[in-house]
Amino acid sequence: MNKNVLTFIGCDSDYDQSDMVLFGAPFDGTTSFRPGTRFASDAIRKDSDALETYSPYIDRDLADYYVIDVGDIDLTLGNTQKVLDEIYTFTKKILNDKKIPFMVGGEHLVTLPAVKAVYEKYNDLMLIHLDAHTDLRDELYGERLSHATVIKRVWEYLGDDKIYQYGIRSGEKHEFEWAKEHTQLVKFTCRPLLDDLKKFKDTPIYLTIDLDVLDPSVFPGTGTPEPGGIFFSEILDIIQGVTQLNIVALDVVELSPHYDMSGVSTAVACKIIRELMVGLLSKENL
Amino acid sequence: MNKNVLTFIGCDSDYDQSDMVLFGAPFDGTTSFRPGTRFASDAIRKDSDALETYSPYIDRDLADYYVIDVGDIDLTLGNTQKVLDEIYTFTKKILNDKKIPFMVGGEHLVTLPAVKAVYEKYNDLMLIHLDAHTDLRDELYGERLSHATVIKRVWEYLGDDKIYQYGIRSGEKHEFEWAKEHTQLVKFTCRPLLDDLKKFKDTPIYLTIDLDVLDPSVFPGTGTPEPGGIFFSEILDIIQGVTQLNIVALDVVELSPHYDMSGVSTAVACKIIRELMVGLLSKENL
Amino acid sequence: MNKNVLTFIGCDSDYDQSDMVLFGAPFDGTTSFRPGTRFASDAIRKDSDALETYSPYIDRDLADYYVIDVGDIDLTLGNTQKVLDEIYTFTKKILNDKKIPFMVGGEHLVTLPAVKAVYEKYNDLMLIHLDAHTDLRDELYGERLSHATVIKRVWEYLGDDKIYQYGIRSGEKHEFEWAKEHTQLVKFTCRPLLDDLKKFKDTPIYLTIDLDVLDPSVFPGTGTPEPGGIFFSEILDIIQGVTQLNIVALDVVELSPHYDMSGVSTAVACKIIRELMVGLLSKENL
Amino acid sequence: MNKNVLTFIGCDSDYDQSDMVLFGAPFDGTTSFRPGTRFASDAIRKDSDALETYSPYIDRDLADYYVIDVGDIDLTLGNTQKVLDEIYTFTKKILNDKKIPFMVGGEHLVTLPAVKAVYEKYNDLMLIHLDAHTDLRDELYGERLSHATVIKRVWEYLGDDKIYQYGIRSGEKHEFEWAKEHTQLVKFTCRPLLDDLKKFKDTPIYLTIDLDVLDPSVFPGTGTPEPGGIFFSEILDIIQGVTQLNIVALDVVELSPHYDMSGVSTAVACKIIRELMVGLLSKENL
Amino acid sequence: MNKNVLTFIGCDSDYDQSDMVLFGAPFDGTTSFRPGTRFASDAIRKDSDALETYSPYIDRDLADYYVIDVGDIDLTLGNTQKVLDEIYTFTKKILNDKKIPFMVGGEHLVTLPAVKAVYEKYNDLMLIHLDAHTDLRDELYGERLSHATVIKRVWEYLGDDKIYQYGIRSGEKHEFEWAKEHTQLVKFTCRPLLDDLKKFKDTPIYLTIDLDVLDPSVFPGTGTPEPGGIFFSEILDIIQGVTQLNIVALDVVELSPHYDMSGVSTAVACKIIRELMVGLLSKENL
Amino acid sequence: MNKNVLTFIGCDSDYDQSDMVLFGAPFDGTTSFRPGTRFASDAIRKDSDALETYSPYIDRDLADYYVIDVGDIDLTLGNTQKVLDEIYTFTKKILNDKKIPFMVGGEHLVTLPAVKAVYEKYNDLMLIHLDAHTDLRDELYGERLSHATVIKRVWEYLGDDKIYQYGIRSGEKHEFEWAKEHTQLVKFTCRPLLDDLKKFKDTPIYLTIDLDVLDPSVFPGTGTPEPGGIFFSEILDIIQGVTQLNIVALDVVELSPHYDMSGVSTAVACKIIRELMVGLLSKENL
Repeated sequence: MNKNVLTFIGCDSDYDQSDMVLFGAPFDGTTSFRPGTRFASDAIRKDSDALETYSPYIDRDLADYYVIDVGDIDLTLGNTQKVLDEIYTFTKKILNDKKIPFMVGGEHLVTLPAVKAVYEKYNDLMLIHLDAHTDLRDELYGERLSHATVIKRVWEYLGDDKIYQYGIRSGEKHEFEWAKEHTQLVKFTCRPLLDDLKKFKDTPIYLTIDLDVLDPSVFPGTGTPEPGGIFFSEILDIIQGVTQLNIVALDVVELSPHYDMSGVSTAVACKIIRELMVGLLSKENL
Repeated sequence: MNKNVLTFIGCDSDYDQSDMVLFGAPFDGTTSFRPGTRFASDAIRKDSDALETYSPYIDRDLADYYVIDVGDIDLTLGNTQKVLDEIYTFTKKILNDKKIPFMVGGEHLVTLPAVKAVYEKYNDLMLIHLDAHTDLRDELYGERLSHATVIKRVWEYLGDDKIYQYGIRSGEKHEFEWAKEHTQLVKFTCRPLLDDLKKFKDTPIYLTIDLDVLDPSVFPGTGTPEPGGIFFSEILDIIQGVTQLNIVALDVVELSPHYDMSGVSTAVACKIIRELMVGLLSKENL
Repeated sequence: MNKNVLTFIGCDSDYDQSDMVLFGAPFDGTTSFRPGTRFASDAIRKDSDALETYSPYIDRDLADYYVIDVGDIDLTLGNTQKVLDEIYTFTKKILNDKKIPFMVGGEHLVTLPAVKAVYEKYNDLMLIHLDAHTDLRDELYGERLSHATVIKRVWEYLGDDKIYQYGIRSGEKHEFEWAKEHTQLVKFTCRPLLDDLKKFKDTPIYLTIDLDVLDPSVFPGTGTPEPGGIFFSEILDIIQGVTQLNIVALDVVELSPHYDMSGVSTAVACKIIRELMVGLLSKENL
Repeated sequence: MNKNVLTFIGCDSDYDQSDMVLFGAPFDGTTSFRPGTRFASDAIRKDSDALETYSPYIDRDLADYYVIDVGDIDLTLGNTQKVLDEIYTFTKKILNDKKIPFMVGGEHLVTLPAVKAVYEKYNDLMLIHLDAHTDLRDELYGERLSHATVIKRVWEYLGDDKIYQYGIRSGEKHEFEWAKEHTQLVKFTCRPLLDDLKKFKDTPIYLTIDLDVLDPSVFPGTGTPEPGGIFFSEILDIIQGVTQLNIVALDVVELSPHYDMSGVSTAVACKIIRELMVGLLSKENL
Repeated sequence: MNKNVLTFIGCDSDYDQSDMVLFGAPFDGTTSFRPGTRFASDAIRKDSDALETYSPYIDRDLADYYVIDVGDIDLTLGNTQKVLDEIYTFTKKILNDKKIPFMVGGEHLVTLPAVKAVYEKYNDLMLIHLDAHTDLRDELYGERLSHATVIKRVWEYLGDDKIYQYGIRSGEKHEFEWAKEHTQLVKFTCRPLLDDLKKFKDTPIYLTIDLDVLDPSVFPGTGTPEPGGIFFSEILDIIQGVTQLNIVALDVVELSPHYDMSGVSTAVACKIIRELMVGLLSKENL
Repeated sequence: MNKNVLTFIGCDSDYDQSDMVLFGAPFDGTTSFRPGTRFASDAIRKDSDALETYSPYIDRDLADYYVIDVGDIDLTLGNTQKVLDEIYTFTKKILNDKKIPFMVGGEHLVTLPAVKAVYEKYNDLMLIHLDAHTDLRDELYGERLSHATVIKRVWEYLGDDKIYQYGIRSGEKHEFEWAKEHTQLVKFTCRPLLDDLKKFKDTPIYLTIDLDVLDPSVFPGTGTPEPGGIFFSEILDIIQGVTQLNIVALDVVELSPHYDMSGVSTAVACKIIRELMVGLLSKENL
């Protein structure tokens, strides 16, 4: 008899054999509007059962590759700094073991310690950032560690000209102005990323997708719905482009399943994760 | 005083006079992920009250034609084979009375006995199948009768080159491969159907629409939401095309209203049913 | 210490200084299908907290202009005529004070008394009407004052050739026929409004947006969802066009937040209100 | 084939044969807090399908008696006075036909015209009123016709010492003081009604049950939940007592099914209706 | 690193060492009103995380005993007979291994094959049945295998005078009459079971708890809510009594978590399961 | 014109004049299971509109006393220590102004800084604690500041024999054992508090009510529902007793309105707050 093991579909390889490691970081401690991204990784695993491992988009099957879903990190709820340290340590270990870390948030702040760990390995790291929001505030309600400041904090590691932001449609005026100096920011759409692909060549890339880059009609289940986002076909195109790059770590964040009564947002997240996986793992010379 | 009669709007003609018979088949017994399509026909009748009988798309009014909504078939819950037999018998009677049967599911397996009944009358029958899923598995969890195998079972009646599938975006690898040999399968979109119309000429057609062919943003209320589907304008175009064919029976399946808190999926289903009706009934020489 | 004041974000100027006055008219007394628009203004104020005052679309910040949110009118629930009188009086006062009234419904009937007040000031007033429904019935269930008759009643003030309707996709046959004689009615889309802009020149305009003009995928939270509507990018384009006109009063109606479990409809309404405000207030020579 | 007729279980006798007539009055026009009682009669009919006709409490079966459910009255939404007139006329007809009218609200104001009709037939009529609220305001938001004033209006017909109120736990101070002079009011509990039974003897009684007399744990689905109410066993005892009286008309009001996600409130309402029916109809010498 | 294992809290012993085996039977195929009990075992495992292993009621800690949660049986959805066979085989194996099977439904029909397996081992088996419904119909909609017939089918194995039913408050008249001849049936309450305890002595007992025996205020999350049930304190008393008996197998059925928005029903089920476990396992001479 | 001010009903006195100050502490940062208590104070204010100021229980009217609702404290989300400091400072100011602070949580950890502020003024302070949970863990997931440790932390200020706990029905074994040495803990019920009243005499009391002391049937809207709690009538009795004591500060915590679809939990919280207010303020010699 088997115990009741819950993993993302097709991600049941042995750790040692795996090229990619999926894990959850169920933290939503700085969420200002509506919490609940802590429930995302669990929802994704459960509903992935309704997903096939086969991608009709690129005619590849996740079952043919080696990925492990190691579950969620145990996080110290209520202590933001400890949580970030725990994510950092976890990501570091996966990198040391020469595997690609694939983190499922949680809120966007979880990206910070993961980038830190990756940056220590690849100090020419660049960030590709898909989001509705700039996330470039310097502080929110007096706090420097927040979902709304995370890319500003990441910039403190990576520096100017290393951060590419796409799909941005919300932020304070000064954030957009700051971005003109320090990042490349594309408003409203992600399509220009497809033209930018050649710029990145073989540079190591950290890819972070805040799922609220999608239009709320496609993805209602998030803390701060922002009308005017991209549609599913656009994110599919982006995934097919970006998986050609040298992505060394990635995350998908901000699914809040309790605001998704019909489960469609979780289904969207599941399919995005599958397409990212098969896209990255089916490249030659991985 | 009148008793409280619940019918789909505009479908209150006498049976004998009617050219088309609407009925519900509230069965969801093989649903593997989330049940609830059994509630569809009731929800559709109730919410059709907010629908007008007039179609501004083709400038025709359902009130000018003869349709009867005869309510739901009494089905033997818990016994799949009996349920299928009951649907078969019911459909057969409508055909014998020289009317067009229009079935509202229920899960997709209800299509099987209806096709069987129609095939016995028209043995050159072809199937037009709009769906997110191939439904071409040979069995699911050991069962040959399932929502996921229904088109494979239908093929056992109709044979090769009789089944046209559109909008398909989910399935196992072997299903897509099998389809290459036995059906015509169009991935992701239904638009090529508009080019295929002339192929069908006057051949008798069974039209089955699994509503999950629509994108979950348009139609969240279904058991297995599949991102990447078609939009409402596309299905309207398809309906205007397909209603020119010789459709001898049809169904609309897989609305699951409990996963549709805002009622938009039921509204979509209602409008699709109205457009199919006015499109089919307003043809000359019906 | 401050009391707990709830206003739409950025609308906290003094009344005397303000160029525009936002107010709620939480009435849903004639709603025939699903009530609840009475909760809209409260929901909009609360969720506007997740909205920035800055519009990246036109690079203008609401914080740079003078608007006051004066809260909701106290309405006499259960007495339709009194409610309309109260809205009329309230709108009249704002106009007398030489400010632009911006009303948040409530159901669409609230537009009638507001138009009346504006028409008394500008008797060459024209109406721009965005909606899924014609709202041109003469009566509904025996009543002449109804959400479904409101534009017919408005016509009794304004007369022929003064009412422009866009995005209409639902109504009875006779409503569409009546419209051919008395209004300009564009079916399914609002884009032709952008071509019509020059026609309006400096004529005083009342703009009424029934949010169900949007597709239910974008805006599920409304009493009568009508599939086949416009998308968010289209309404943004329309707003950028129409705010160039001489709009002397406006309203946004028919958000029903209880049918919007994920809050996306309220987010859409908030952003439309912000874009209308910054668009109108940032014109030169306001 | 049968059309889809929806009636309360066991209430399908012919009108002429019936001793009791069940009908819905789906009006919620003066509801100040949360509307939705208009959906009650439909929900009750639908969910009554899960109810047996047999009462194990008094060992009687509804199937053995003659009741008809005639559906809902067509009401003029948005015009309170017309709605009340329509209910009055409908009730009057049933009384003229020598049957017991059993009305399902709707909000509590629907009781007023029904009492008026009954009072015209029985001018020694007394009212037994179970409720959380006094409903004795003179006006609400300037309106004399309101769910919060209904018993005050009823008193204007019946006069002092004719109204018995039980279970009351909410109201303004002056309402409780007024009640001391004009009605018999029992706070918090309904049990004293069992002692009062002998007082009523054969006097014709109108029984009105505002279901919010029940504790919100038992009955959450109502517009204004009032903690501290009675439990189901108490209302069962009350029903067994009160059905011994000479009840000539009755109503059950204020179920608001949309606030009752799990359906338990509708189930409670259904069982109360069944017990009232079998209790009244199984009396000897009906 | 650990994979993501989901078990009921405190049930993580090795199989061989365990005295009791918890498993899920997620079947709801014959449910006539509202399906969804298939989600119960998953919900119970997940929410058990908020439960302590320690019982303050009997001052015992589940952590001190040996139980394993082996997850859910793989069931053949859509084929009732196969499902029953699978449950039978699974239960049989646990019994052969000299452990107590503790099944979590699923709908009530799952009890039938489990009883059959247990009866083959203990042919003097008696059944203690807590439920709102008699479950004594001979068939439902023409089917003999149904949640509404399960105790009748169990009786065909056990015979007269072996079935004790408590808390029953719903059924058809003929079911109650049949029960007078063949079972011991207590209406409305379970308390008489405490007096009956001595009757059972050391007889092997199968205990089946249909959670709808609880009042819907305590336990709203079930397919057919039946007002008038027992409260939590009563079921606690019953558990403390019944766990003194020689229970050789048991089940807890009919939680339908999707009708339990606030999660209270799942919490009730979790605590009942814990109390049954610590009660049974802490007996001397187990 | 008035801006849209949202206060708890009847709490609109001037600050200087007020004897009691109501404020919200919308913090849920350490919540381990289901977050959302941050929404409680807003929900309470809004739904208090459906509450009367008059208490029929003690025949007193809140309108006759002086209370101010000053809204919510601005809290630094994501930084637990700062949040606690902000609550401490706020409470301290109210005490310095010789008013009674009445805090609405938020999660239970908000009690800690409030007790600290009160303890600095009254160093013979005693705590009366109504709760389902002991809250006596030393740490949770490695954190000493948590909703599950708050009473242990409070004990570090107050010391042995100063903490009285009632209604406790959940905790780890070691917590109950620790309580035997350091607090007075009553399991399952709060009624013994009524006997303990005389013990407290004039000692300054901090009263903290974790609303999950109530049974989930009464109060489903909380993060961790614990079946087996007290009913509304019991908490009313407790309030009438405890308001006779010398309560110098108090709080009501752990309402999580998003898990309370029908609003009954918010209604319960509102009525408890009103009864506490009128009970405390109507004492002679306040």
